Amino acid sequence: MPDHRTEDSTRPRDGGAPAEDRAGEEQRLFGPSAITEYLEQVVAQLRDARGGEPSTSIPALAQADPERFGVVIATADGHVYEAGSTGDEFSIQSISKAFTYALALEDLGVEAVHDRIDVEPSGDAYNEISLQPGTGRPANPMINAGAIASTWLVPDSERELRRDRIRAAYSRCAGRDLSISPEVLEQESAAGDRNRALGYLLAAAGIIEGDPMQALEDYFAQCSILVTCRDLALMGATLANAGTNPLTGEEVFDPSTVSRVLSVMSSCGMYDDAGEWMVRVGLPAKSGVGGGIVAVLPGELAVATFSPPLDRHGNSVRGVLACERLSQDLDLHFTHTARVSRSTVRADYPIDQSPSLVRRNAEAEAVLEAHGKDAVVVELQGDLLFAGTEAAVRRVREVAVEASYVVVDLRRVDVIADYALPLLARTRAELHEAGRTVVVVATDEDLVGTFEGHPPLEIFPSRAAAIKWVEDRLLEEHGGPECTPARVNPAESELLSRLSPEDAAAVRARTAERTWSAGENILRAGQRFAGIHLVVSGDVSMSLRTPAGERVELQILGPGTSFGELALGSGRQRVTLSAITDVTARVLGPDALAALEQEDPPLALRLWQALARDGYERADQQWRDAAVHASATDW
Amino acid sequence: MPDHRTEDSTRPRDGGAPAEDRAGEEQRLFGPSAITEYLEQVVAQLRDARGGEPSTSIPALAQADPERFGVVIATADGHVYEAGSTGDEFSIQSISKAFTYALALEDLGVEAVHDRIDVEPSGDAYNEISLQPGTGRPANPMINAGAIASTWLVPDSERELRRDRIRAAYSRCAGRDLSISPEVLEQESAAGDRNRALGYLLAAAGIIEGDPMQALEDYFAQCSILVTCRDLALMGATLANAGTNPLTGEEVFDPSTVSRVLSVMSSCGMYDDAGEWMVRVGLPAKSGVGGGIVAVLPGELAVATFSPPLDRHGNSVRGVLACERLSQDLDLHFTHTARVSRSTVRADYPIDQSPSLVRRNAEAEAVLEAHGKDAVVVELQGDLLFAGTEAAVRRVREVAVEASYVVVDLRRVDVIADYALPLLARTRAELHEAGRTVVVVATDEDLVGTFEGHPPLEIFPSRAAAIKWVEDRLLEEHGGPECTPARVNPAESELLSRLSPEDAAAVRARTAERTWSAGENILRAGQRFAGIHLVVSGDVSMSLRTPAGERVELQILGPGTSFGELALGSGRQRVTLSAITDVTARVLGPDALAALEQEDPPLALRLWQALARDGYERADQQWRDAAVHASATDW
Repeated sequence: MPDHRTEDSTRPRDGGAPAEDRAGEEQRLFGPSAITEYLEQVVAQLRDARGGEPSTSIPALAQADPERFGVVIATADGHVYEAGSTGDEFSIQSISKAFTYALALEDLGVEAVHDRIDVEPSGDAYNEISLQPGTGRPANPMINAGAIASTWLVPDSERELRRDRIRAAYSRCAGRDLSISPEVLEQESAAGDRNRALGYLLAAAGIIEGDPMQALEDYFAQCSILVTCRDLALMGATLANAGTNPLTGEEVFDPSTVSRVLSVMSSCGMYDDAGEWMVRVGLPAKSGVGGGIVAVLPGELAVATFSPPLDRHGNSVRGVLACERLSQDLDLHFTHTARVSRSTVRADYPIDQSPSLVRRNAEAEAVLEAHGKDAVVVELQGDLLFAGTEAAVRRVREVAVEASYVVVDLRRVDVIADYALPLLARTRAELHEAGRTVVVVATDEDLVGTFEGHPPLEIFPSRAAAIKWVEDRLLEEHGGPECTPARVNPAESELLSRLSPEDAAAVRARTAERTWSAGENILRAGQRFAGIHLVVSGDVSMSLRTPAGERVELQILGPGTSFGELALGSGRQRVTLSAITDVTARVLGPDALAALEQEDPPLALRLWQALARDGYERADQQWRDAAVHASATDW
Repeated sequence: MPDHRTEDSTRPRDGGAPAEDRAGEEQRLFGPSAITEYLEQVVAQLRDARGGEPSTSIPALAQADPERFGVVIATADGHVYEAGSTGDEFSIQSISKAFTYALALEDLGVEAVHDRIDVEPSGDAYNEISLQPGTGRPANPMINAGAIASTWLVPDSERELRRDRIRAAYSRCAGRDLSISPEVLEQESAAGDRNRALGYLLAAAGIIEGDPMQALEDYFAQCSILVTCRDLALMGATLANAGTNPLTGEEVFDPSTVSRVLSVMSSCGMYDDAGEWMVRVGLPAKSGVGGGIVAVLPGELAVATFSPPLDRHGNSVRGVLACERLSQDLDLHFTHTARVSRSTVRADYPIDQSPSLVRRNAEAEAVLEAHGKDAVVVELQGDLLFAGTEAAVRRVREVAVEASYVVVDLRRVDVIADYALPLLARTRAELHEAGRTVVVVATDEDLVGTFEGHPPLEIFPSRAAAIKWVEDRLLEEHGGPECTPARVNPAESELLSRLSPEDAAAVRARTAERTWSAGENILRAGQRFAGIHLVVSGDVSMSLRTPAGERVELQILGPGTSFGELALGSGRQRVTLSAITDVTARVLGPDALAALEQEDPPLALRLWQALARDGYERADQQWRDAAVHASATDW
């Protein structure tokens, strides 16, 4: 439930058209982003890294240009930063294993796949047999034996053959139509006897049923799919984004599938160098002998690299160095990135530091002054994952030690984990048993259901509304009826009380009674001074439209208060006043005021003094509110 | 650089005394936390899980009560939640391997240790030989061969023998003095022949130099150290907290050591069930045949479980189930937890929605109205890790497309990664080349150095100060000198301009000139009405002390403005006014005002009308500011 401004601020990150346009404009004006420049430095500095040879397994790989080197970062919301040779196509090779395994999991479910392919690191090279004694299961889907089994598990559909379904799935991840290289496929097939042997061993073990040869050809085909470094990064970003391609918005894989695939990549993705990789890079990843590597930071981004020369494990030399460098420079290692949610408790303060919009009379002000500390606002922000929820629950309990009312403001919370609200609801129940009341400020109505239980949860759309509710409770508990009068004699209005009883009566004699029904507009912004209104009964809302076009409620005026005088300032109403309930007021109109000035100058002087004092006192009061509000929001 | 209220709100989480007291009080009032209740449910529901047997390797383990079952969560800042048998001691066994490996790394450094112990998963059971062909290196430190090598690597010190240094290190992690069980040690030693064989094989391979037997006895001793489930959780929390015990504050291990240990735990920590564990739990962990498991979510928390019955891999049956359950319920899996920093851009808005405190004259207001959109505030919050920094950099570039000035408010940022400020600084340079100006709001002076380069970065302590600076630039660029007059004729004061020139002159004739030097107090809050002050030259600061005792600057008043009238409201000053520069003003004192009323009632009436209008117009202006400020901070 992001608040709308947070949404605004992240909107351009959704990869939609506006973002693209803006990005384009922004590139034109300011040149490449500092992040792109950083990637260019990394490519420049690692380009000279020597050692390693392109794979010699097939001519197409052996002939690869060893100088080509590209690095791409794609964020989980689809923004791409690239440097070097990021548009050249190369064969995906073993990186395909992760995506075909994902497809098999989607098609058949975890159990069926797990029966035939385990998820344990083998400690062996990728082309080792590694079938488990007994079951004959391949140790994991990232070694050839397991990958061939994955391919075999992907069924043909009515309309599409297995290899087309595989190619289509990769294409949805990359966000463009990928193709199989006939040349690479032919060479893979020609050099594929060891894999054929693995296929027959799998058949012998009953892992593959029937003739494995078609599956082998499809396996060769999947390894021959051509991708660019940018494609790989977007395929990784689709995994980082829990299976949904962030650019096309298409849900390619289920989040649970992605979680399993990333977990297996983390322990088995980098051939027999997996342990060293986890130590030095600390990201789930998969590499291919084509020279590509894709590494994924779940929820955040993917890194893809391309450089053909391989180390003895079969991993790209420059690719490993680049991933290591990015992991160190950008703190991407899984042991570094989880410093989340320490700051979910944005602020907490007693409500008297952020009073409601209600214009209270003197008695009420006194009660709230005395008891305002008895109610505390706790503002939460960011992601309510476990650590953040734990901090929030602990804080709410701590402030409730001193306070009877706790207002929990959830509007700035972005992600709310499933368990977060039940834990908050349970905490509310515990506090209720101890006589505390917890209310919530939230724009999301669905919350109500989550906080079931008695008493029903009070949810308010704004902090001011929640604080008004709490203030009214405090006035009921600690104040007399005079704090919230239903009706007053106009002579008791705050404004006229600045005059002697005789003067007040004389002024009152010149007022006329008017009534409005609930919802009616009383005074509109822009209209001329229409008189001084003394509220006799009912509630009046004072509101204003901001330059941004947003209507903001400023104050709620009850019996004894007055309005309309503000127009004496500029001569025009700046604020709008409307009746919340049915309203009765006595009005001293412009003509009556002019007449009074004509007929009784001394009284007029005293009235204007009263008005001046009223005006300044309200400006004064405003300053005070602005100050406490400023400090409460540390302006 | 947390802002002070966030600090407040997290202070009780630092494990210091106040937190303890408060926690105690809060427990007494509200009972166990909802999180403790959740753990109690988990224990109750999994208690009946059957299957598995306690280890039979030694009598002490075989005799363990299979019913004992405890679960503990310890947060990275030292708050502990526990349920079940969390205080019973048991032998740490293989969990010790992770901590002795850490100690060896601290003592000898990564290279020396890596020469003798690799970090690759072996795929074999924990007691397999698993020495690498050729080097003879153990595959990793979590199998017995590697663990024995780790123990051998820990040197004696002058004052302490190896086993005492090991015990001392574990004790610092647990935050209490742990002891070795003589009974368990004796039995381990008696049953240790296979491990002795491993020791001699390591010696034969040259991994261990000299007689391995003392190292074996010390290895048996470290496995015999007694811990409780709570101890394990705190040892894990020390790893989660990057090597510093969150309760004692003692730095036991270096963060880089912890990162390496957690990485190895993630691929090798759960015997030959490591792959399945990563899929189902997704946390680096280590288990022991004593029935304990500790799992770590870096930066956030540790989970510890204790239940003696073991599965065929040697892992606690209930422990695995409990960790799986917590990982699922609380989203602790590494593929789920990294949804961090999506919301670092808290808000952005043009400055005319959050104007400075400067009371501008009409000309200046008009210029700012016309050009206010030319400057934008971008508020950042939370953790500036990579994803958050990337979002922030992108947002700053995007708003700069339309705006010439960008105010970046960093005060709500909690964690700032090393690379974050250089990326922001580089972005500022790029924008500067395109004629844009970026200024920063921050309370941390150290920032300045990070933003080196020309022009020097402008850093402001408050958003209002930054906006004033930007407004002044806009007035210089787009306004005439009349926008920022150095001196005015008092007849030109806004207040007197409400009167006819003759009236203004007549009032002015009754004023007296007064001067104050920079820094001097002019009017103190609480004092009686001291006259209407018309500023002729200089700047005056209007400020207020909040109920919380904080002094807030409300407005800066320049030539042509007036002050002191506010006291006409309540009769007393509520705000304090002090001279920023040398100040000259014309003052209409209380006596002069009274005399005027006596001697010229019609003029007095017109003056009071002017005052009333001024008061209301200012209250009105205030409402407008409050409204835009409210919408800008979504009050």
